[in-house]
Amino acid sequence: MRRYYDITLPYSAKLPAWPGEPKPIIKPHARIVDGDDANVTRIDAAVHYGTHMDAPVHFIEGATGIDAIPVDVLIGVTLVVELVDVDIITAPDLIHMELPQKLDRILFKTKNSDLWNNLEHEFYTDYVALSADAARFLVERGARLVGIDYLSVEPFEDNNGFATHKTLLGAGIILVEGLDLRAVTAGTYEIACLPMKTVNADGASARAVLWQGA
Amino acid sequence: MRRYYDITLPYSAKLPAWPGEPKPIIKPHARIVDGDDANVTRIDAAVHYGTHMDAPVHFIEGATGIDAIPVDVLIGVTLVVELVDVDIITAPDLIHMELPQKLDRILFKTKNSDLWNNLEHEFYTDYVALSADAARFLVERGARLVGIDYLSVEPFEDNNGFATHKTLLGAGIILVEGLDLRAVTAGTYEIACLPMKTVNADGASARAVLWQGA
Repeated sequence: MRRYYDITLPYSAKLPAWPGEPKPIIKPHARIVDGDDANVTRIDAAVHYGTHMDAPVHFIEGATGIDAIPVDVLIGVTLVVELVDVDIITAPDLIHMELPQKLDRILFKTKNSDLWNNLEHEFYTDYVALSADAARFLVERGARLVGIDYLSVEPFEDNNGFATHKTLLGAGIILVEGLDLRAVTAGTYEIACLPMKTVNADGASARAVLWQGA
Repeated sequence: MRRYYDITLPYSAKLPAWPGEPKPIIKPHARIVDGDDANVTRIDAAVHYGTHMDAPVHFIEGATGIDAIPVDVLIGVTLVVELVDVDIITAPDLIHMELPQKLDRILFKTKNSDLWNNLEHEFYTDYVALSADAARFLVERGARLVGIDYLSVEPFEDNNGFATHKTLLGAGIILVEGLDLRAVTAGTYEIACLPMKTVNADGASARAVLWQGA
């Protein structure tokens, strides 16, 4: 028997939005109670909201779009690591963990996950993220998918030229941000982390599920 | 080694939209070439566009929304059947196929799939869909997920009170519509068919992937 963990945030207009980006507008296009045949919802939103993925073209003009990410990056074995007592994840933190030489997929559970105890909190600027040297470490270890439990892999207003994003995306690593890892502990899982297949888009809403067991 | 089949349509404004529903508006919110830090796309769309799923509340007021579908419906073993020479799928067609007594998940490949040879075709009203008696057959066999390769499980303007949708959704069966099954043949696969987790929504864009092999 498999045990599944849905690590996706529920998508509504109540989640914190990235500063400067609009919250989604979710409204009815048709409603049975208004005499329509069916209920049909319409959503107007920036694609980097809630649980979402970043494609290389998010920060690198002309690079790969979210529709072109190979499926074998999006589905397979992932490591979940817990770093619950750090304010920023650095290369020394990762070296200290004695991670496998080949990382492939890795999700970071930090104290960020506790922020999702209140899904409707105001955007929190002091979230835990990856330093540029941690990003370089992940590139050297061959990561293809990197995930974290708040809305960016990069510290807020880090003033380093977006080095974390550019290092990871520049190496073709795909990012998943806004994960809810509260119910998950460190270990090895299968993951299906599937974004919308929007042509040439810089990112997309995604649904991310972990499981263990055959 | 697994072999993956991405059975999701590429999402752009060029796909046919359901008559009366708007095509998505996909536009930049921020662009590197305009001096912004990153590329950020914004999408304004009805949720039943492209490859998407229907939740019971699409046709049944107060019923389950797309966020509440159990993950073990969305991931697992599925049957793909081919019915490439029919204009409508009826209960006798299904009885004739000698399907398993317990169906669980089933995807129908029909001549609809050939329509995706031109992704930008005008909405095609004569697509192959399920009759109401076929829907009742699927309910009796315990199906939990039913998919088809055009934009509705129900014949266009069938004037039967949306019996196909209401029979399936009324039994709690989740639908996936707008699949591209061109590259797939009949058989047994694993599927991950993951919709956006939009709270209480009647449907959602989905990414659907099949695979075979361990």
